[in-house]
Amino acid sequence: MNRKHIKNKHLDELKELLSIPSISAHSVHKKDMISAAKWLQKKLNSLKFETKILPTGGHPVVFAQYTTHNSRPTILIYGHYDVQDPGDLSLWKSDPFKPEIRGGNIYARGAADDKGQLYTWIAALEILQGTVPCNIKFMIEGEEEVGSKNLDVFIQKNKKLLKSDICVISDSHCLSETKPVIDYGLRGIVYTEITVKTLERDVHSGIYGGNVLNPAVVLSQIISKLKNENHSVLIPGFYENVRKLKKSERDELKKLPFKDKQVMNETGALVVTGESGYIVHERAGARPTLDVNGIWSGYNGEGEKTIIPAVAKAKVSMRIVPNQTSDEISNKFINYVNTLEPDGVDLKVEVLSTGNPILMDTSSLYFKTAENAYKKVFGKKPLYKLSGGSIPVTSILKKHLGLDSVLMGYGLPDDNLHSPNEKLSLTMFEKGIKTNIEFLKSF
Amino acid sequence: MNRKHIKNKHLDELKELLSIPSISAHSVHKKDMISAAKWLQKKLNSLKFETKILPTGGHPVVFAQYTTHNSRPTILIYGHYDVQDPGDLSLWKSDPFKPEIRGGNIYARGAADDKGQLYTWIAALEILQGTVPCNIKFMIEGEEEVGSKNLDVFIQKNKKLLKSDICVISDSHCLSETKPVIDYGLRGIVYTEITVKTLERDVHSGIYGGNVLNPAVVLSQIISKLKNENHSVLIPGFYENVRKLKKSERDELKKLPFKDKQVMNETGALVVTGESGYIVHERAGARPTLDVNGIWSGYNGEGEKTIIPAVAKAKVSMRIVPNQTSDEISNKFINYVNTLEPDGVDLKVEVLSTGNPILMDTSSLYFKTAENAYKKVFGKKPLYKLSGGSIPVTSILKKHLGLDSVLMGYGLPDDNLHSPNEKLSLTMFEKGIKTNIEFLKSF
Repeated sequence: MNRKHIKNKHLDELKELLSIPSISAHSVHKKDMISAAKWLQKKLNSLKFETKILPTGGHPVVFAQYTTHNSRPTILIYGHYDVQDPGDLSLWKSDPFKPEIRGGNIYARGAADDKGQLYTWIAALEILQGTVPCNIKFMIEGEEEVGSKNLDVFIQKNKKLLKSDICVISDSHCLSETKPVIDYGLRGIVYTEITVKTLERDVHSGIYGGNVLNPAVVLSQIISKLKNENHSVLIPGFYENVRKLKKSERDELKKLPFKDKQVMNETGALVVTGESGYIVHERAGARPTLDVNGIWSGYNGEGEKTIIPAVAKAKVSMRIVPNQTSDEISNKFINYVNTLEPDGVDLKVEVLSTGNPILMDTSSLYFKTAENAYKKVFGKKPLYKLSGGSIPVTSILKKHLGLDSVLMGYGLPDDNLHSPNEKLSLTMFEKGIKTNIEFLKSF
Repeated sequence: MNRKHIKNKHLDELKELLSIPSISAHSVHKKDMISAAKWLQKKLNSLKFETKILPTGGHPVVFAQYTTHNSRPTILIYGHYDVQDPGDLSLWKSDPFKPEIRGGNIYARGAADDKGQLYTWIAALEILQGTVPCNIKFMIEGEEEVGSKNLDVFIQKNKKLLKSDICVISDSHCLSETKPVIDYGLRGIVYTEITVKTLERDVHSGIYGGNVLNPAVVLSQIISKLKNENHSVLIPGFYENVRKLKKSERDELKKLPFKDKQVMNETGALVVTGESGYIVHERAGARPTLDVNGIWSGYNGEGEKTIIPAVAKAKVSMRIVPNQTSDEISNKFINYVNTLEPDGVDLKVEVLSTGNPILMDTSSLYFKTAENAYKKVFGKKPLYKLSGGSIPVTSILKKHLGLDSVLMGYGLPDDNLHSPNEKLSLTMFEKGIKTNIEFLKSF
């Protein structure tokens, strides 16, 4: 097979994987989750990997290994086969689960996050087949988009199986097709759901209005006390353990071109705003935040419905940074929200998932190897950045195996992760495969 | 036909009418709206009424007249054939549009509000057929549950057709099967929708969290400024024109047995609470209120979705009292909400519908006639109450025709209007028919 054939074969295979609607959040897609796991198992079997689909408390993990080089390092490749819910289908230009190539990009839910990026490693190994000078393991999970809730227990149980020298993860992005970047830190997350119940059923707003509590009003009042209008989180002690950046780090962050204008283009925001005294990159990666991811109560259809709703709910999540911990922030959040409960309200605060923040040692051998691989393919040294996202596996691997991770991301800032019309640039897909080859060949 | 046959026939006919899902808020039910109007037309034709289905800017009005007694008064009977959306079907014990009789009640959406109550007049006229000593007109609208938005124009256009001496309306409730009540005032309403847009699309909360505005947070902040924790509405000048009750009115309201305990039983509220310094009946009828009828933004499914939503919306309505007006309160609301708009937000405030409050002259001949009819059937004088609900037609008839209304309601407080498992007591249905007969026979 010539290069072009290989390239077409890889794109065809990626399309197959992207066609499986493996949405981990919805139990109705359980069968699709298994299909995606089996698809990966079959593919890795064809590359002579020894594979297993291992159960967890939720969706299973695809594990694979090819470990014939006893004295050489072992690289653990992490990825996830689950995707986010596509949301409002009318906002997608093509079906999220019928991959389509337009203008040098492949469009589909999961194209960048994470099936397409994960696949760059599979393609690299297929090209290198038989000539890889190190040992390879794969751990591909199915619950990254729902907070990797069962991964901590899974990794703790399978320490021996997962033992490696470094973990590499392609689930982040470069600044552009010519500006590579390595994320050296990730935010953690505490994802919660607040339920305010004031009545047993929705009631007539004329008959009862004036005499009973409105749960949507109470919930709004609670939310308005979580964050003030200067974008500061009001939970007592929230900022207590936030690490201050070194001057050298701030200087490095200032080199990054991710500016207000770019955020506005990517999101359609009319203003870029946040905690005062910090630049965009600090607010995106070095500062913790709080957001409402969803809120719902009562009637949301056409026209009017004159009710007082019985229940109001909100999904509220916090992105946390070193040296905050998810346990600390979960507790502070729960305690504070409980102090905001008025009399006569049935209030429930649930933590749905958590992940700790992490900071990597950029001076390690593996970072240097990654840096060189990027240099060879992109022609320039990657910049170092603190990512605003969360990849729970990184802190779990560190905790149980003492294992560091290198984030070798091949997405772009406008890939529409978690939004309609998610895409992956075909140029980045190819450069990703090549960078992985350079990286793997170095051991 | 004997009495029992007549009773069964009336129940069978009411079931037919209740089976039509005439939900005015949803355009998908337009055909059902026409079916309900035609059903009423056919029935009134059979009682020798001259009938017309008259167009409006929205759903049509069923008009009927039987006016052979030139020198006698003309009674305009108002009702509405539209119903509220049934909401979550899983909360209904039987299908909202398959009427079912259980424990002395008929269960269906619209059983009490308003098909069942309206039907008490049709049944009374069928029983009295040929012996009614006065002229009768019917105006049955199809948009009461969506704020009667086209009724003002309709009534203005059809003044001559609608000319009458009094309007009677059965769309309210007694205190129990043995405690009749006449509502002598109704609150008005201003029903609005607020839209907060901060982004063009939902975006990843990790990548952008900290740098862009969250519309659900902004909307919560706005709502938290509409009403404080002491249940006072914070719109400047909101209470300025609220009428103070006379001492005699307060004394009469204090006689009513509608107490905290009853509100708690009917709604499942853990506390009955509202503006301090007012009793439950004042807060329910003599004081204005503000409620969130619905709020929605972002993700509300299972598990997690780590997005910052693009848009957040809320339905916010105010119940207003004499001498507030819907124009005054609409303007004050819009102006105030606009002052709460932060920079960088696309804020829209829409008034979906309005209705003015009304206060009736309880000393009129027609009130006394109604009082006597109740006395004959229930064995006791009705109490006088200010209703918390809104029936827009009352203020429109007063404005364009100078026409007063008498509210002869046959519901009960636990009829679950606008809630799952709406019902009408069969005892009240029968007493209603009898009270109407006594009322009509008096002219």
